Amino acid sequence: MKPNAEMLTAILEEVRPLIGQGKVADYIPALAKVSNHKLGIAVYTNQGDMITAGDAHEAFSIQSISKVLSLTLAMGLYLPNELWQRVGKEPSGQAFNSMIQLEMEQGIPRNPFINAGAIIVADMLQSRLSAPRQRLLEFVRKLSSNPHVVYDKVVAASEMMHSDRNAAIAYLMRAFGNFDNEVIPVLNNYFHACAIKLSCVDLARTFSYLANKGCMVDGGKRIVTETQSKQLNALLATCGLYDGAGEFAYRVGMPGKSGVGGGIIAIVPGDMTIAVWSPELDRSGNSLAGTQALELLSERMGRSIF
Amino acid sequence: MKPNAEMLTAILEEVRPLIGQGKVADYIPALAKVSNHKLGIAVYTNQGDMITAGDAHEAFSIQSISKVLSLTLAMGLYLPNELWQRVGKEPSGQAFNSMIQLEMEQGIPRNPFINAGAIIVADMLQSRLSAPRQRLLEFVRKLSSNPHVVYDKVVAASEMMHSDRNAAIAYLMRAFGNFDNEVIPVLNNYFHACAIKLSCVDLARTFSYLANKGCMVDGGKRIVTETQSKQLNALLATCGLYDGAGEFAYRVGMPGKSGVGGGIIAIVPGDMTIAVWSPELDRSGNSLAGTQALELLSERMGRSIF
Amino acid sequence: MKPNAEMLTAILEEVRPLIGQGKVADYIPALAKVSNHKLGIAVYTNQGDMITAGDAHEAFSIQSISKVLSLTLAMGLYLPNELWQRVGKEPSGQAFNSMIQLEMEQGIPRNPFINAGAIIVADMLQSRLSAPRQRLLEFVRKLSSNPHVVYDKVVAASEMMHSDRNAAIAYLMRAFGNFDNEVIPVLNNYFHACAIKLSCVDLARTFSYLANKGCMVDGGKRIVTETQSKQLNALLATCGLYDGAGEFAYRVGMPGKSGVGGGIIAIVPGDMTIAVWSPELDRSGNSLAGTQALELLSERMGRSIF
Amino acid sequence: MKPNAEMLTAILEEVRPLIGQGKVADYIPALAKVSNHKLGIAVYTNQGDMITAGDAHEAFSIQSISKVLSLTLAMGLYLPNELWQRVGKEPSGQAFNSMIQLEMEQGIPRNPFINAGAIIVADMLQSRLSAPRQRLLEFVRKLSSNPHVVYDKVVAASEMMHSDRNAAIAYLMRAFGNFDNEVIPVLNNYFHACAIKLSCVDLARTFSYLANKGCMVDGGKRIVTETQSKQLNALLATCGLYDGAGEFAYRVGMPGKSGVGGGIIAIVPGDMTIAVWSPELDRSGNSLAGTQALELLSERMGRSIF
Repeated sequence: MKPNAEMLTAILEEVRPLIGQGKVADYIPALAKVSNHKLGIAVYTNQGDMITAGDAHEAFSIQSISKVLSLTLAMGLYLPNELWQRVGKEPSGQAFNSMIQLEMEQGIPRNPFINAGAIIVADMLQSRLSAPRQRLLEFVRKLSSNPHVVYDKVVAASEMMHSDRNAAIAYLMRAFGNFDNEVIPVLNNYFHACAIKLSCVDLARTFSYLANKGCMVDGGKRIVTETQSKQLNALLATCGLYDGAGEFAYRVGMPGKSGVGGGIIAIVPGDMTIAVWSPELDRSGNSLAGTQALELLSERMGRSIF
Repeated sequence: MKPNAEMLTAILEEVRPLIGQGKVADYIPALAKVSNHKLGIAVYTNQGDMITAGDAHEAFSIQSISKVLSLTLAMGLYLPNELWQRVGKEPSGQAFNSMIQLEMEQGIPRNPFINAGAIIVADMLQSRLSAPRQRLLEFVRKLSSNPHVVYDKVVAASEMMHSDRNAAIAYLMRAFGNFDNEVIPVLNNYFHACAIKLSCVDLARTFSYLANKGCMVDGGKRIVTETQSKQLNALLATCGLYDGAGEFAYRVGMPGKSGVGGGIIAIVPGDMTIAVWSPELDRSGNSLAGTQALELLSERMGRSIF
Repeated sequence: MKPNAEMLTAILEEVRPLIGQGKVADYIPALAKVSNHKLGIAVYTNQGDMITAGDAHEAFSIQSISKVLSLTLAMGLYLPNELWQRVGKEPSGQAFNSMIQLEMEQGIPRNPFINAGAIIVADMLQSRLSAPRQRLLEFVRKLSSNPHVVYDKVVAASEMMHSDRNAAIAYLMRAFGNFDNEVIPVLNNYFHACAIKLSCVDLARTFSYLANKGCMVDGGKRIVTETQSKQLNALLATCGLYDGAGEFAYRVGMPGKSGVGGGIIAIVPGDMTIAVWSPELDRSGNSLAGTQALELLSERMGRSIF
Repeated sequence: MKPNAEMLTAILEEVRPLIGQGKVADYIPALAKVSNHKLGIAVYTNQGDMITAGDAHEAFSIQSISKVLSLTLAMGLYLPNELWQRVGKEPSGQAFNSMIQLEMEQGIPRNPFINAGAIIVADMLQSRLSAPRQRLLEFVRKLSSNPHVVYDKVVAASEMMHSDRNAAIAYLMRAFGNFDNEVIPVLNNYFHACAIKLSCVDLARTFSYLANKGCMVDGGKRIVTETQSKQLNALLATCGLYDGAGEFAYRVGMPGKSGVGGGIIAIVPGDMTIAVWSPELDRSGNSLAGTQALELLSERMGRSIF
């Protein structure tokens, strides 16, 4: 069954009772103060239809969802060999910011979506781009067709104030010879990427290239090759939801990526791009109501990759 | 493009030069003596066409591929809650037979496809079936439409002689209260399941229910519900290839399961079931030439879940 | 100052208020039912004086203290090279029954006083003695000058009923090739050794060879060489108190060995042998009041190895 | 037997053939270029006799031996509770610069002699001293009775250039709330302490307070209380030789501390202080010939704490 506004609205009402059972990210004040009652969803079909419900037009901090955008940029700047010798493609089996695995595996992060891996990608962007922060912002504005996208400076600064663990991760990788630039500026760029603000509508538009064999739905511009699009979806499916990737695949059955701001994007390759937002998180750090909404949507539409 | 015998034959010739670069499993003599030159492939479409090339009709030890069959049986005997409180659904991020994670996570294996998880499933089958070994054999004979399927008694006995690590795993889970029966009989059943002999043709037929929304292609008999079929494919996609699930998704883009006998099954949901066989393994324990054959097949057919 | 009965009695009264703040070992019923109010101490000087206070004459389960006796026996049966290639001499830095380190270090236990190491010693005794259990009992009877020493059969049987973790440890070492006999009989011997019953007086007499350069104080019979005596004391000092060896050295300053029955032996080389008993344990599994009594005794006598 | 110059000279000749079998520390150039043929020993008795052989008067980089001096200073500035809530007293069971244990144990280092623990001590000195670097230097000059002791600025700067792993350790502890100052200045002080240059003669004099119940042998000035002296020796005995503390106790039987410059100090409480130097290290990072010289000396003198 095709998605429509009624279906989306019904799903939001069905998952709304979950609000109160999760926990808004509170490691920085700027995130903690977001209302836990926000709830939105947007579905962008490959035919160019945008269907929405709830707070789908309100921008929020995309946090780790930005890791997909940084990786996409890096895949355009580096050969596969160059990229994948510095970061792996396997699920981590540990919390997103654990250093144990990183030390055991000699400073090579498991995948580009745990913090260590995303910091490597930021280090690689820093090495090849003269103004990586500006470049990433332009990229997102183009993908979202929204020229007003900005970094939330308060969030970025606040993250920088709480960056000790990420600094430890970066220095450990440097100790293993897997880090080329100064730690602080790279972290600063990394935190800015996390502090990008987008709405569900922006997000669904931004990631439509992953549903459309590498090309933006709106205008058709090629962002990555068809093969790269497949590869990105594969990485999302196995590593996109921290330590909850298996559960997400089992319940939702779509490649996806979450952020601690409460957003999740999910892809039905060849068909549509979905974005949901609900700030309260489950124990793995993924949006509680957002995951449930995606599960219901998958069921109602009868669509998944499996 | 649709697969045909010429395509399959061409792919086998293209991957044949990889033979010599991997390593046949040699932890038991019965596996070590299989010729490393065996190479076969079978594609079974949801329309009922069986397309083959190479040694597709020769039976071999399916080893860990049997874990999918045991889990399928268990899903029919237990409620989801009963099953998933004893074994997880997440990729492990460690070698298939490591005990470190198992101890850290209090005796709950990460997923049903690492050894610890499959041993839990064997323990659960033992608790609910009066003759689990006979029952599994009948199940496989039905699925493969091959009444001649047998256990390789030499392989099973040989595995039992080298079962110390699996015994350690079972006893550790028992120490955590996650094991109900005597260790030795459960391991014996577990090793018999691994010692089932099937050809690529048998395997492609056997797993057609995962490509066909839970029903066997031949005859249409329902094996699992449509939802369970989705769930099984999700588990295969995130956990089916030991510590190489991410790489397999990236290159092949299909849910799959490998065994150290050199077999791999792969599913294109809604479309077809594929089985390959080449005994030499890569460092993660997955068939080297088999994986490459699946990657080429995915490219040539333009088919993957991503 | 020399120890005397008044000093010992005063120390026991001083530590008695700690009773109620620890926890009696309860993993087997036979240990759990010992009264937590038992409190005894015995000091046996190299001049042959036995000074006691409290429940010093009541026998209790020596548990891990037996590991020193088994090791002493093994040092007489094996060359140092044979022994120390199978078990290390380093503190473990992890709980006494953890398997993580054992797997990381390829089945070679850190030292002979963690469970894994003591099980290796039991395996080695099994390989060279025709009746290891009888032999150990005779050895203890000789050392303690007490022909009535027995195994507590109820404790040994109860341990065997709760042996899953130790079985897991033994099988893991077997998987690494560091175990020569059948697991069950070796564990049975190991649990019998733990189930030896001795009083503080027996214990102080039993271990006098470690205070007396390798010879029993009573009669002067040589048990180990002077060098071996030094080596055993060194092992006790660095590895004798599970994960609390550093704290014990810091507070008490004597080589020692504890058991979960609440006993501790401590050595002042060249001077005296001490045994204390109080069943409640601290978080590391060492007798809470017993450790405190030893600390006070060390202070009052002005004696330690540091 | 009492030590004399002939005994020391004979021992040095006996261990000299070991040179060539170890490995000089080469992680910074300034250490790598020290001649591997240096070999010296000094014994300083509590009666004030200094007995030497070989290169006993040549100053070298004391490296981790400085950790004992920093801890001694900190014990004078902090109450035991304040100190020991931030760093443990247990052997680590892992390499001296591993982060795995540090993460598992929530940023509390196992003991003050692994890098993480020494960095905590440096952080604590920074918090309470206005010029910690100058203060430490004055302290060492007083203890060694050598006003010419200096920091090797080249070594300190070179360490700072290779400080990524130590920075990672410091940031990780900060992430756990166990670090109060800025990372870089604390590391700078830490590396300066490691870069102190002392000869064997200087070292034996410097640490005489540990052999003499807390008072310098020369002049009798009290440095720590008698109890603190016992405690420091206990920490040296269980944690002083990285991951080789057990082996050192077994072979040498004295509290000791090593540095990657090839120096080792060893204490016979109540009797004498010993310093050896030979730059080649064994696999645990302790001086190969130095350890052997101490083992022979312990045997020849018939002196150890066991």
